[in-house]
Amino acid sequence: MKIYLNPNSTELKVILQRKVLNENLVENTVKDVFEKVKNEGDKAISEFSKKFDNVNISTFLISKVEFIEAIEEVPEELKNAISQAALNIEKFHSNQKENVSIIETMEGVKCWRKSIGIEKVGIYIPGGTAPLFSTVLMLGIPARIAGCDEIVLCTPPDKNGKVNPAILYTANLIGISKVYKIGGIQAIAAMTYGTESIPNVYKIFGPGNQYVTAAKQYAQQINIAIDMPAGPSEVMVICDETSKEQFIAADLLSQAEHGIDSQVVLVSDSEDKIRLVNDEIKVQLENLPRRSIIEKSLENSIAILTQKINIVSIINQYAPEHLILNTSFNEELILGIKNAGSVFIGEFTPESAGDYASGTNHTLPTNGFSKQYSGVSLDSFVKKITFQEISRIGIKNIGKTVEIMAEAEGLLAHKNAITIRLNNLKDENK
Amino acid sequence: MKIYLNPNSTELKVILQRKVLNENLVENTVKDVFEKVKNEGDKAISEFSKKFDNVNISTFLISKVEFIEAIEEVPEELKNAISQAALNIEKFHSNQKENVSIIETMEGVKCWRKSIGIEKVGIYIPGGTAPLFSTVLMLGIPARIAGCDEIVLCTPPDKNGKVNPAILYTANLIGISKVYKIGGIQAIAAMTYGTESIPNVYKIFGPGNQYVTAAKQYAQQINIAIDMPAGPSEVMVICDETSKEQFIAADLLSQAEHGIDSQVVLVSDSEDKIRLVNDEIKVQLENLPRRSIIEKSLENSIAILTQKINIVSIINQYAPEHLILNTSFNEELILGIKNAGSVFIGEFTPESAGDYASGTNHTLPTNGFSKQYSGVSLDSFVKKITFQEISRIGIKNIGKTVEIMAEAEGLLAHKNAITIRLNNLKDENK
Repeated sequence: MKIYLNPNSTELKVILQRKVLNENLVENTVKDVFEKVKNEGDKAISEFSKKFDNVNISTFLISKVEFIEAIEEVPEELKNAISQAALNIEKFHSNQKENVSIIETMEGVKCWRKSIGIEKVGIYIPGGTAPLFSTVLMLGIPARIAGCDEIVLCTPPDKNGKVNPAILYTANLIGISKVYKIGGIQAIAAMTYGTESIPNVYKIFGPGNQYVTAAKQYAQQINIAIDMPAGPSEVMVICDETSKEQFIAADLLSQAEHGIDSQVVLVSDSEDKIRLVNDEIKVQLENLPRRSIIEKSLENSIAILTQKINIVSIINQYAPEHLILNTSFNEELILGIKNAGSVFIGEFTPESAGDYASGTNHTLPTNGFSKQYSGVSLDSFVKKITFQEISRIGIKNIGKTVEIMAEAEGLLAHKNAITIRLNNLKDENK
Repeated sequence: MKIYLNPNSTELKVILQRKVLNENLVENTVKDVFEKVKNEGDKAISEFSKKFDNVNISTFLISKVEFIEAIEEVPEELKNAISQAALNIEKFHSNQKENVSIIETMEGVKCWRKSIGIEKVGIYIPGGTAPLFSTVLMLGIPARIAGCDEIVLCTPPDKNGKVNPAILYTANLIGISKVYKIGGIQAIAAMTYGTESIPNVYKIFGPGNQYVTAAKQYAQQINIAIDMPAGPSEVMVICDETSKEQFIAADLLSQAEHGIDSQVVLVSDSEDKIRLVNDEIKVQLENLPRRSIIEKSLENSIAILTQKINIVSIINQYAPEHLILNTSFNEELILGIKNAGSVFIGEFTPESAGDYASGTNHTLPTNGFSKQYSGVSLDSFVKKITFQEISRIGIKNIGKTVEIMAEAEGLLAHKNAITIRLNNLKDENK
């Protein structure tokens, strides 16, 4: 962890800059895979599964038997934990439902908005070192609350063609039956175009490595919506002399274990505390199994000593995915926060609570994207359609306004659609 | 208008297919302009304004004097109309504000969500044949309600370096002071990178020609958010034997006058009515100034005769930007609608009411994008940040769940961030 003492604003600009991701490297691979999946469907999926994931597979859909086996394999204790998390996530996201409220903007002019679930959505769950069944909850539950008709989940199998049982258990628990054993670029291509056995979708969600990220960006260019642009996970922790260094160190380490490109940023007005946290990191690191990952990601990580007055502006400039406020002046900071994905307030609110079970979503904008994007929520799974209904009185009230504006924009047919109705009403009254 | 009588589902798939837009043509131009604006700033903007818009300009910001002159130039009647429209749009969009509601998912685990305006947003208003001051209202009003700190508006000047007065009047009315006389690709590039005189923004909104569309897509690839992908404007009108052909024809024509690539689609269970509407189109067309545009766009346009039972599925398959329901069975249709941008219900609800003044937004998903995108709303100008605060009791309640899940995902540092806190609480109680 590099420590910066009282950097000025020019220095801060450099310090807070994230590494530029080089996504172009994989762009050609992505194009090739998409092209082949578009033209050859399942056959191409099989070939790429062999090539990239080293697995021979031609039936992709998880069978009922596989679901049943998975359910048996998951320990009871984990089942209960997943159920508790599901309950909290359901509670928080259900509350995001919007009631239809009809606004009469003028007498006889009624306007409203209705949320409707996106008919077909796709969820990608990566394989790799951590089986992210928690992400199944975070994406599957709002999809179901939103009323999405078709939820497709793709996740890569291991070399034996098996999927982690906790992922299958969780999918089944929340009612996702269409789970396909496909990974990487070919999974995103399959959900984009559809194949003989995999349905196409309108929007694709979920995390992934640089290949999956590049594939989602490519899908977006050919008109499939995606949850948000992706980057490495990150946390910014704010502490002061009153914070417990054990808690701060544990929170920084929990972020650092995600991957070697994860970034943790510590900001404090106390140089002593920064030193203590650094020492504590070394102590806690000793016993962590993902130590080698953590050591690499700590190399990208920084601690900034600054005056209290600068902290809010550093937060907003960095726009962290996760922001932990562990100071004696949290309330002051909250008032000034403009850019952050999710904020964790107080010493008993570690990021890992929100990562798994508190109820908030853990799919959040990284890479400074919280300046313009929200994390995943119920909103991500619906479209909001506007409706309007104008009565005879309404058209009389609004008609003139529309006629004048349409004429001023030179759109006389727009004007005429009003005039013809107003004239009709005059005739009616004769 | 091509008329299709009772097409089957395979035929419908072809009939409802939109023309594929060829955006690659302008991609290289876009890249070049972006590169030059990035490196040379204002100087590049001046050069491109000369090259593309044939105007010599080096001061881009609209001055106070220009605003004052514009205000004087706009006729009183138009000012009143714009004010009425602004009032309705304000009313409808203000109602989209979300109250913060704190959810206690478990005792001691409090989660909430807060909407915060995107700090810097950019609005593009095209020049060309129609001076779209209505779009200034549609984008500027929600931006202001959202609390966006900096609203930048770019619009191309005419050959004399002037901007349409109604655009300036409207911007001034709703409190947008940063209006720049820049058009096309260079405007989008300026808002992406910022120059000496034009601020960069985090999200870009607004319509435009194929160059602007391609520029926005390019901006999105380099991490600027955009309102939504764009395509030609379109309407689908549903009518039956009870509909007045004059109204239907007027609505179809008002859509057709937008541009030669606009598409209008008529769907009916009455062949007679389709013929009558077609005849009526010819009559009304005679007196319309944009007749040559309309005739071209009618060439892309279609009428479909089908059974009543098929109509909902045709709507959802086409996913129209604008949908007008002018039948005796509107209520039945509404229940089945899943994909549409904005729906106009009943014979006195023409699209042009919503285009200008009823209160709903007119920036809507075209090209079938209403399957996965909403139109512009207050949501488009905010990020929703989640917050959580866990008490001592809360961490005891949720701790075990998080520990078990983190361990099952192999993320032991995540688990440790909980364990260290639970242990601390045990020590406290000793």
